[in-house]
This record gives sequence, structure tokens and C-alpha cells, in this order.
Amino acid sequence: MPSSPIPLPSLGLIGFGAFGRLVAAHLAPLFTLRVHDPFAPESEFTAAGLAPVSLAEAAACPVVILATPVSTLAALVRDIAPHLTPGALVLDVGSVKVRPAQIMRAGLPPGVDIVATHPLFGPQSARDGLRGLKIAVCPVRGDRGPKVGAFLRRALGLTVILTTPEAHDREAAAVQGLTHLIAKVLVAMEPLPTRMTTRSFDLVMQAVGMVRHDAPEVYHAIERENPYAGEVRRRFFELAAQMDEELGEVELASAEV
Amino acid sequence: MPSSPIPLPSLGLIGFGAFGRLVAAHLAPLFTLRVHDPFAPESEFTAAGLAPVSLAEAAACPVVILATPVSTLAALVRDIAPHLTPGALVLDVGSVKVRPAQIMRAGLPPGVDIVATHPLFGPQSARDGLRGLKIAVCPVRGDRGPKVGAFLRRALGLTVILTTPEAHDREAAAVQGLTHLIAKVLVAMEPLPTRMTTRSFDLVMQAVGMVRHDAPEVYHAIERENPYAGEVRRRFFELAAQMDEELGEVELASAEV
Repeated sequence: MPSSPIPLPSLGLIGFGAFGRLVAAHLAPLFTLRVHDPFAPESEFTAAGLAPVSLAEAAACPVVILATPVSTLAALVRDIAPHLTPGALVLDVGSVKVRPAQIMRAGLPPGVDIVATHPLFGPQSARDGLRGLKIAVCPVRGDRGPKVGAFLRRALGLTVILTTPEAHDREAAAVQGLTHLIAKVLVAMEPLPTRMTTRSFDLVMQAVGMVRHDAPEVYHAIERENPYAGEVRRRFFELAAQMDEELGEVELASAEV
Repeated sequence: MPSSPIPLPSLGLIGFGAFGRLVAAHLAPLFTLRVHDPFAPESEFTAAGLAPVSLAEAAACPVVILATPVSTLAALVRDIAPHLTPGALVLDVGSVKVRPAQIMRAGLPPGVDIVATHPLFGPQSARDGLRGLKIAVCPVRGDRGPKVGAFLRRALGLTVILTTPEAHDREAAAVQGLTHLIAKVLVAMEPLPTRMTTRSFDLVMQAVGMVRHDAPEVYHAIERENPYAGEVRRRFFELAAQMDEELGEVELASAEV
């Protein structure tokens, strides 16, 4: 990319997995990236034209994005806290928001602003660009939520949904909880027909294809760390069992006739 | 439509519900239709430029398509049998094939050829035309199966899958059984989120939208009259319960720590 006439602002990115790399690819033209991930192979950094930095260096940037699994967030927050600068803005990108918002509010120093986000897409759905894809933005501390929203809208073309961690997790419990649950079950049932299919079945399998290669951490965050996911699952199973029973009774009734 | 210089062959269509009307719309340019359905409102016939005929008149055509619910097929076969002409070709269009094939083979006079079909689409998916849509074709009696397949391919642009009733029902138990089951459960869970959705959830809901308005008879045929549907449902529930248990155990374990 052409070098900018004025130095780009630094942005710390902690976590260089599939989603961290997507973040880096889209923010590289706008920021000087300082990326930390002790588990990412050197080759991933090289491929992105980046050199890894220490946790302290990434955390000392004015904007810091946490792109590690939700289950590691508490430990990460503890580790970066001493390195954050006053007035810094910290964002996460996890699939659930209630617990991460609590963890960040409790663990990050008071002078640091916090915006919890959930990009409602992955590398798969972002293959053809970010334009029109959705992101949930939840202000947690400070007043920079709307500014973050405006940036995501204008600079990246995202559709921004300004919400709260609770409202987010309630909706995500249905949206992601159900999609991933259905996908898990269908993948376990494979091989499934590929030839004699209907358009509606093809759509379901296309949805399965979009989430089946998500990291196990994503599935676990969605199903286990969303406080409303269990409720949605139970309701799904209850209704499913009820329908099976209704069908079974009729089968029995017609067998008896 | 322009009148044909030579008279079009007659085709009897018994059943003028949503699917019967779709059949009529696509075959009207190629056949003189003789449509019977005592339950269809007069207005549907008028809209299609047709006048209803008696069961005997429809059944006396050289080609007869049965487009009534699978559950009524046995009675219908009994009623039309005396009116069929030797050498006639009878086709059905039901969502399952094992039981209808048995019913037709047992109930239709020996001189009548039988081809069981399952168009893998409905009025919804055929909105933009038939081209490329799939149809399963199962020869049941006589050797006209390949000829029927060739006609559907050439005249209507359908993708023809020549198969057996058993092979059809095995695949359909998964394809349609799972789609309809998932759709039923999701519809029962409504209202579901519409704003904060992922692309994969949108695809699943698009699939739900395609089957949710199917006649109840279609759902019942798929789930009850397909001999393999119960097995598929049980496997779906078993795997789903297993996943719920796995997630529940971890929730419990982390709650105890």
C-alpha cells in the first residue's frame, strides 16, 4: 500500500487468529498496527507484512483491540492492565457481550474507555468485503461508543447496531445459538444427501457451511458464555420433542387402525 | 396463448391445489388440460382459463397426473381405476414415493403404466421459473420412465433424477424431514430476531420462509408417510440431546469451580 504522508495512528491488536487477521487486513490502511500473539505462527505475520510486538507494546497504543477467545479474556485483561495508557480505548470482538463487558469493566483501569463489539460475521462471510455486514457496538465505559460506530460505518461500510450487552446476548442466543446448534447436529449426521435436495435444504446446508469451520472457541462462547443460550436450547429441544411426540402418536394411531 | 395448428394431447389433472395449479400453468401450452378438483373454488379455474371436468373425464385422458395429498391417494386410485383407459400413463407428484408407488401398483389396472414423481420444489421456489429445478422420477410399471424424464428435461428444463421409491424416500427423509422439522421448531419459537442477525441465520430463516406456508398435508406426508423419517428425526434428537448434555456438563463444572 502507498505510504501515508502523515504518520498513521497506532493500533494495538492482541490476537492474530482468523478474526484478528481479518481485522488487521481491513485496518492496515488506516493504522500503524502493533500486533501481539505468541501463538500465531511467524508465517502469518510475514504474510501480512507485519512483525510481532510484545504484549506491552501492543497494549500501550491509544486504541487496543482484543481479538482472543472469550474464555481467555479475564487473564488477558489482567495482563494488559498495567500497560494501558490513560485515555486509551479498548475494544473486544467476542461473540457474547455480557460477560466480556463485566470482565473489562472490572479489570481495566478507570482512565480507559471501553467499547464492547460483536462483528456479526467471520472471515467466511467477509470474503467479498465488509460493506453491509453487521456489527453490534455496546458502549461500556466512556462516551466514545457513537464515535466508534461512526468510524465503522464510514471507514469500513459496516451496518452498526448500537445496543447493550444484555440486549445483544438475548438476540445472539437465538441467532447464533440456534444456527450453531443446528449446524453441529447436521454435521454430526453427515453424510447427508447432496444430489436429491430442495432449495430450502440447500440454504440450510449453505448456512452450515458458513459456521462449520468456526473455531471451537466460537461455538463454546456462543453456547456456554451467553447467559441466555441455555434457555434458547431448552426451548428448541422442548418444542422439537413435542413435535416428535405428536408425529409419533399419529404414527401409533394409524398403525393401530 | 396462440391456438395450436394441431390439437394438443389431453392431460387429466386431478387436484387443483397450489401444486396442481403450478402443474397446470406449466403444462397448459403443451396439453389440453382436463382438471378435476371438487374442493377447488370456481375462481381458481376461471383464473387459469379452465372449466372443471368430472373425475371420469379427467381419468379417461391418455396421461393422468394425480396432484392430491398423499393421504388421499388410496381412495383416489380406487375411484379412478374404472375410468382409466388401457395404455394410459398415471403419474403422482407426492413428497414421498414408497407408499404411493405401492398404492398405485396395487390399485391401478394392469394395462396402465405408472411413473411416480417428486418435484423437489413448490410454487415458492418455482416463482422464477422451472429451469434447473429438480424432480425425482421413479418408474413403477411399464417402460415410460426415461421418456417422462426426457420430456421433463427438454420441455420444462427440469433436472431429472431417475431413482427408485426406496432410494428417494431415504434421501428425502433427511432432505425434507430435517428442513421441515427445523422450520416447524423455529416457527414455534417466533418472534425470532430480525435485526441483529448473521448471514448464516438469515439463510436458515430464508429456508424456513420457503417451507412455512406449505400445506399441512405436505409436512405430514414428509414426516409420517416416509418410512425413514422417524429414524432421521430420532437421530437428530439423539445428537441434539447429546450436545446439550455436553454443554450442560461443562456449565455445571464451571459453576462448581
